Amino acid sequence: MTPLSMASSEDDKLREYCGIFGVYGHPEAANLTYLGLYALQHRGQEAAGIVSTDGSAFFEHRRMGMVADAFNRQALERIRAPMAIGHVRYSTAGGNTLANVQPVWIRYKGGNLSVAHNGNLVNALTMRLELEARGSIFQSTMDTEVILHLVACSLRKTLVDRVIDALNQVRGAYSLLFMSEDQIIAVRDPSGFRPLVLGRLGDTPVIASETCALDLIDATYEREVEPGEMLVIDKQGMTSIRPFPVTTPSPCIFEYVYFARPDSRVYGQGVYELRRRMGVELARECPIEGADLVCPVPDSGVAAALGYAQESGLPLQMGLVRNHYVGRTFIEPQQSIRNFGVKIKLNPIRDVLEGRRVVVIDDSIVRGTTSQKIIRMVRDAGAQEVHMRISAPPTTGPCYYGINTPTEEELIAHGREVDEIRQFIGADSLSYLSIEGLYRAVRSTPGKFCDACFSGNYPIEVDDRALGVKAGTSG
Amino acid sequence: MTPLSMASSEDDKLREYCGIFGVYGHPEAANLTYLGLYALQHRGQEAAGIVSTDGSAFFEHRRMGMVADAFNRQALERIRAPMAIGHVRYSTAGGNTLANVQPVWIRYKGGNLSVAHNGNLVNALTMRLELEARGSIFQSTMDTEVILHLVACSLRKTLVDRVIDALNQVRGAYSLLFMSEDQIIAVRDPSGFRPLVLGRLGDTPVIASETCALDLIDATYEREVEPGEMLVIDKQGMTSIRPFPVTTPSPCIFEYVYFARPDSRVYGQGVYELRRRMGVELARECPIEGADLVCPVPDSGVAAALGYAQESGLPLQMGLVRNHYVGRTFIEPQQSIRNFGVKIKLNPIRDVLEGRRVVVIDDSIVRGTTSQKIIRMVRDAGAQEVHMRISAPPTTGPCYYGINTPTEEELIAHGREVDEIRQFIGADSLSYLSIEGLYRAVRSTPGKFCDACFSGNYPIEVDDRALGVKAGTSG
Amino acid sequence: MTPLSMASSEDDKLREYCGIFGVYGHPEAANLTYLGLYALQHRGQEAAGIVSTDGSAFFEHRRMGMVADAFNRQALERIRAPMAIGHVRYSTAGGNTLANVQPVWIRYKGGNLSVAHNGNLVNALTMRLELEARGSIFQSTMDTEVILHLVACSLRKTLVDRVIDALNQVRGAYSLLFMSEDQIIAVRDPSGFRPLVLGRLGDTPVIASETCALDLIDATYEREVEPGEMLVIDKQGMTSIRPFPVTTPSPCIFEYVYFARPDSRVYGQGVYELRRRMGVELARECPIEGADLVCPVPDSGVAAALGYAQESGLPLQMGLVRNHYVGRTFIEPQQSIRNFGVKIKLNPIRDVLEGRRVVVIDDSIVRGTTSQKIIRMVRDAGAQEVHMRISAPPTTGPCYYGINTPTEEELIAHGREVDEIRQFIGADSLSYLSIEGLYRAVRSTPGKFCDACFSGNYPIEVDDRALGVKAGTSG
Amino acid sequence: MTPLSMASSEDDKLREYCGIFGVYGHPEAANLTYLGLYALQHRGQEAAGIVSTDGSAFFEHRRMGMVADAFNRQALERIRAPMAIGHVRYSTAGGNTLANVQPVWIRYKGGNLSVAHNGNLVNALTMRLELEARGSIFQSTMDTEVILHLVACSLRKTLVDRVIDALNQVRGAYSLLFMSEDQIIAVRDPSGFRPLVLGRLGDTPVIASETCALDLIDATYEREVEPGEMLVIDKQGMTSIRPFPVTTPSPCIFEYVYFARPDSRVYGQGVYELRRRMGVELARECPIEGADLVCPVPDSGVAAALGYAQESGLPLQMGLVRNHYVGRTFIEPQQSIRNFGVKIKLNPIRDVLEGRRVVVIDDSIVRGTTSQKIIRMVRDAGAQEVHMRISAPPTTGPCYYGINTPTEEELIAHGREVDEIRQFIGADSLSYLSIEGLYRAVRSTPGKFCDACFSGNYPIEVDDRALGVKAGTSG
Repeated sequence: MTPLSMASSEDDKLREYCGIFGVYGHPEAANLTYLGLYALQHRGQEAAGIVSTDGSAFFEHRRMGMVADAFNRQALERIRAPMAIGHVRYSTAGGNTLANVQPVWIRYKGGNLSVAHNGNLVNALTMRLELEARGSIFQSTMDTEVILHLVACSLRKTLVDRVIDALNQVRGAYSLLFMSEDQIIAVRDPSGFRPLVLGRLGDTPVIASETCALDLIDATYEREVEPGEMLVIDKQGMTSIRPFPVTTPSPCIFEYVYFARPDSRVYGQGVYELRRRMGVELARECPIEGADLVCPVPDSGVAAALGYAQESGLPLQMGLVRNHYVGRTFIEPQQSIRNFGVKIKLNPIRDVLEGRRVVVIDDSIVRGTTSQKIIRMVRDAGAQEVHMRISAPPTTGPCYYGINTPTEEELIAHGREVDEIRQFIGADSLSYLSIEGLYRAVRSTPGKFCDACFSGNYPIEVDDRALGVKAGTSG
Repeated sequence: MTPLSMASSEDDKLREYCGIFGVYGHPEAANLTYLGLYALQHRGQEAAGIVSTDGSAFFEHRRMGMVADAFNRQALERIRAPMAIGHVRYSTAGGNTLANVQPVWIRYKGGNLSVAHNGNLVNALTMRLELEARGSIFQSTMDTEVILHLVACSLRKTLVDRVIDALNQVRGAYSLLFMSEDQIIAVRDPSGFRPLVLGRLGDTPVIASETCALDLIDATYEREVEPGEMLVIDKQGMTSIRPFPVTTPSPCIFEYVYFARPDSRVYGQGVYELRRRMGVELARECPIEGADLVCPVPDSGVAAALGYAQESGLPLQMGLVRNHYVGRTFIEPQQSIRNFGVKIKLNPIRDVLEGRRVVVIDDSIVRGTTSQKIIRMVRDAGAQEVHMRISAPPTTGPCYYGINTPTEEELIAHGREVDEIRQFIGADSLSYLSIEGLYRAVRSTPGKFCDACFSGNYPIEVDDRALGVKAGTSG
Repeated sequence: MTPLSMASSEDDKLREYCGIFGVYGHPEAANLTYLGLYALQHRGQEAAGIVSTDGSAFFEHRRMGMVADAFNRQALERIRAPMAIGHVRYSTAGGNTLANVQPVWIRYKGGNLSVAHNGNLVNALTMRLELEARGSIFQSTMDTEVILHLVACSLRKTLVDRVIDALNQVRGAYSLLFMSEDQIIAVRDPSGFRPLVLGRLGDTPVIASETCALDLIDATYEREVEPGEMLVIDKQGMTSIRPFPVTTPSPCIFEYVYFARPDSRVYGQGVYELRRRMGVELARECPIEGADLVCPVPDSGVAAALGYAQESGLPLQMGLVRNHYVGRTFIEPQQSIRNFGVKIKLNPIRDVLEGRRVVVIDDSIVRGTTSQKIIRMVRDAGAQEVHMRISAPPTTGPCYYGINTPTEEELIAHGREVDEIRQFIGADSLSYLSIEGLYRAVRSTPGKFCDACFSGNYPIEVDDRALGVKAGTSG
Repeated sequence: MTPLSMASSEDDKLREYCGIFGVYGHPEAANLTYLGLYALQHRGQEAAGIVSTDGSAFFEHRRMGMVADAFNRQALERIRAPMAIGHVRYSTAGGNTLANVQPVWIRYKGGNLSVAHNGNLVNALTMRLELEARGSIFQSTMDTEVILHLVACSLRKTLVDRVIDALNQVRGAYSLLFMSEDQIIAVRDPSGFRPLVLGRLGDTPVIASETCALDLIDATYEREVEPGEMLVIDKQGMTSIRPFPVTTPSPCIFEYVYFARPDSRVYGQGVYELRRRMGVELARECPIEGADLVCPVPDSGVAAALGYAQESGLPLQMGLVRNHYVGRTFIEPQQSIRNFGVKIKLNPIRDVLEGRRVVVIDDSIVRGTTSQKIIRMVRDAGAQEVHMRISAPPTTGPCYYGINTPTEEELIAHGREVDEIRQFIGADSLSYLSIEGLYRAVRSTPGKFCDACFSGNYPIEVDDRALGVKAGTSG
């Protein structure tokens, strides 16, 4: 879905906007979806929702907040049903917009229809203006609503045909779960921007953004939903359709770098190992003479730091400790106490850092402010030198395919030399992994993934850009 | 709005579905709307909402629950703006349907539009099927959404013309407040089923369902919004339009009997005095020989009991005491404690009732179960005789114009003789005010009001009935 | 209990500090206590608590807030047990003092002991200083804690003897419920300042501050717990003891005037009828020539107004309407909207009041500010004359026996002539019922009740006064 | 404090019962205490409280729940004051016992006194019985209340002398913060069982359980509060007293093994480095031939695993991933979904573990159930062999000095051979670090610490044991 404005990325990370999960034909489908969303919490922490159906009535529970807070026993009992789809998301600025929490549930000439969307349409605004011109009304700011209007306007007869009709009119990134009274339809856009996997719990088909959600419910990972594939699940079983023109897939490489959980398999490969390999490649490309130790920024830099340490032979040390309880609401007290910045999350260990030449490993630098604070913290703990190594190339461009990125102006790597960035963050040295190194690490070659945020090569054109849409925001 | 199913009427009263309130051009418009809704709480206790605008951005706060619980200081600060409309409503069965809480706020080709609706369309389902056929999607079960689709589909150029266009396609009961970036439009359907008044706070126009909401904010009552009138309020001031074919007005007479607050003026007359007069007429029509005292069912029967006592010369006694704290959630404890029924709300005073021949006055009997419990309670307190007098005619038919009524089968007076009802409720005698008596009390004559629930004369046909819609439910 | 400071009396009424309730030997004792507290809500709206025991373990649930908000199903399930005592109370200024919420539950050499207290000790501070001198620690500001220390310090062997020992050292007002593992002890001080009644639910003994709590659970009213009586309830049954020196009882007459619910029997008489009789006496003592109607301030003045109207022959009219939803938290909006004062609670009916000479009836004037606002409101609604009649004598002195009264300086009737008060509140005339009239109404004679707040005759001396304790505040 | 029963240790860890924090003489003392408690959250997650004073009035806020949930802005504003002490704790079984949440605040002959306690008295029950015998009452089940009674009963004149008097009568573990109107007194028992440090924020003295709390507020670590030392902080500055008989210190060695945060300095040494050294010693003592990789149980085993890997030369791999969002309430759904056990917290990475001989590192095994589940999980992920290595000796005995331990029967290492444990948890091999190895790792020698849970050598006798107190539970 496309909120009109972007959530601020408080710890200077790019943010996945959404995670989706669905179960067809299990007495505990809604409960399993709750668990699936819990495992996908990292893909969207601001709101969560489930819509379920018993084949006739629909039930919904959508709330602002984390999964564990959004649902209670009473809610889970109320929505208990054998078909369910769920969604986690980031909130838009301004916050209180429950109207934007998914799954969306509408009634139209075909009956009930619910949808959960991960991704971002690049012609949503264009389509929206067209739809409005013919009299459509919008109750949210999500591009997902555009898809629903197109489904409802379609003159085709079946839901499958209507969905195909609708999706043939939109362009962009979408991993989608549709649910009617008797079908769940899973679709991944032809470019396959966002991940989507198929699993089985016994005979029950389960669809999820990442395999970690399958693991939690003890479902078996079966395979990727392929780019351009549509899975139709109903009483007849599961049918795979490929209704879209074939295009070169370009799945998001940043899922490997940061978004996905390390214990997930994404696009068929285990994420943790790829991150460790990024660290290995980084050590090869950007070694540091005479460093004393490798220290990850927890938890994002841990796997790469491990690889870096192994390859470089430098000892790994957990010189920065992460507070477990961060994530809960925290009230910053009065102004007379100085700003805590990153302190509430990280604390350096003087014993480890004092007098040492430290290689700090992280996966990305977005605005640079957090890296700046971390480096100052490491220096304050007595480090003699601080060398920053980033296990991905510089993030130079915004994403229009479903990731919450700041504007180009806010991206510190946009139009700046590495040394300028180094000065800003205050490191003794700074290096990034090259695009080639990144591809080596993920055992692939350029062209096989969307790397637009690093390379500026946007696989599909962003129509709405002409309409003044700045950065691609998504669901 | 039309929820698909009806709320159960727990204390055996018909229920108004909604109250609306709006302010144009006051720095505290949203706060005043909060107060107005507080005063209209009796018209809808299950949900409340306000949408406001500063002429550019729109703000909304909608919640399940009573007004005082639904809003906190933070919410009121967030929605502070100089134009605002608000809504209170009853919930539908199943409860948790925030999607049905008004005001609705959409974006369409004309920009933003918000609407608050009190009433019920009689061709909503018909229109909905037509709209769905052309591809419209519905995100709620409210008939209000039909109106919004019609506005959005209209080919007219201005909001006023679009609203006229839309309302010319619907039939039924509607008192409506529309709000765009720069206008508030108040409309009352040609039959004038539901009340709507215009007031002024200084120069600021204020629109409300009842005058008691004007009183609370110290606004002056100016006049009724007339049946079929549309008031357009914007920078140019206020314009009155009468865009609909003229018809005989038929405002709801039950507002006088029960719904409106006694301190409100409705259709130009003070409600309390009319209720007292109903008691007077009742005493004339149905005197009781040898009764000792008149006892109202508080609070609904108080004004009529006063009139009855005055006319009959019998002493008035408050023999039933109402618990002030009812209305808050109450947990009925374990089954081993017998059901409390009406006891949690009313307690009889033995001193007053013991050994007496008591005339109990109430305004209506819907299902009969509560009257039955009250009469048993009065007898248990020692009353020698219990004579029930109802200050309105028997409620024999459901309402399709905005009132929550049970089905005909549930209405105890539907197809039953008065004596059958008397036996059911266990009274020594039972009488109702005649329709003629009711009209005398309200200083009018039959034909001037909608009295369908008493007479079966439905002023406008209920199209949706053919589609299987059972009872008129409304917003 | 004695909070150190007094709660402000927001609607200008004196406030009862507490209500107590207890059940011995019923499987649903805790649930019944919850219901009993619900019925006693008017005696304390700021906090509620229940302590229960199964004869071995003790359970407690104490919370700030009204009964319906303080308990949920989970809490009631957790405290389910066959013996229970409960308490409702007003909070002290500053609010968040959960430590002051009763029943108190301690462990001491005798085992567990819980207590609920309605009343106020007049030598609490004196005793507290003595106890502190010997090393006692206090965890609340309640005088109830003094009693517990005295029980724990007693050298007697049985709980009954210890309680007698303790109570022989304190002076003042106390209706008390003690609960140990195997006994409930109900005590009323020798003066009998605060009410306490004994009821039966089947064979189960029930103790309550007022009979309305018995009514709700369908318990039968048996009799008063007599002044100076101690009821010991345990497996052996119920024993009545009179362990204190006999004194002339002086129960609080203000319970009849305002505190008790009208449907309660207090000191053996029905409250509603006595209030009606106060109106009758008032009409005899202070008639008004040429008045048009009698209008009560709802709900406190209703019964007296009824009596006044009956005796005077003037018509009764409900010219002031009370908002049912008051009592819930209400957020006063921005300053630019004028203060609502009494408006949020009362609304006048212009039809009834305009051009009339109105007799307004209330039960008391404490500070005078609310009466002033009401009279202005009645005048603004067009009344030609406003005559205030108060169904009790002027409140001239504070209470030290369990009622929350303002200081003498704040009591408008303290040291002021009636005409000064009349001028302040802005009435055309003002009269109070005489003390003799009040005694006639309650079918008694001076000397039989504590009327200190009217007469200045304090039945027992207030020791703590010498220590600077200003007004008697209580539990 | 001593709850009468122990909290169950849901993830099979021993639990610290409490953390304490205090600030003397800073305008934001209460806010700083809030932050300090936030940093000490790992020492007690079930309740939190702060008591503050402006030198005259005392303010308190105590709640069940985590620090971030227990305090909101309003609460922090209400308690803003220049002196404050705070406390975090584990709850007792049964939960809802707000009475047990610290700091305790009493009034006694000396005025106000508040106290926060980390530790456990071994003669609390003995003293309690004595105190009860002389008439003391107890409102909680905490041993801390015993100390307060002793202070209040003391015949000495100053608070310092009274505290000394009181503490000379108790035995056991206590790190204490007392606060009166004008003093904060920090005391650590002569054995120094629990840690306590002194820091400075500018000139402001700050006392905390661990240095990580100083770090968060940017206070400088000054030194340990020494075993047996009493720091008196008031307007005259800070005075150090040593009022107790000198004994051999025996600080808890388990703080190093698990309780303290790795970024804290405890007893003068950095915790992280000591844990890493435990891993090194473990690798020396218990190498594994032909293992493929070292995998920590996150996060408790990370530092030791790092040391193990470094010493053994085996690669470190994060083969188990911890869900960040655990800690929030989680609703286990219906029974038909199989039990999740440890799954909700940990997920294995198949890529890393499949076909490998894995060394799993953790810091302790308490009941064995969690280790069993983890090993099964690692096997299910395809590991060929699973070798468990524990970086501390077997936990064979309960703690009576402030740690929540299960009973001896529940401790799997109590009376069992290592091989029996290995069989139970299902590992291919299992080894523990020796006591000697542990002492080498912490750069000390046996006798310098309390290692009773490993060795059975209890430094001070547990008087209450004779009274049937089973395991040492503490505050």
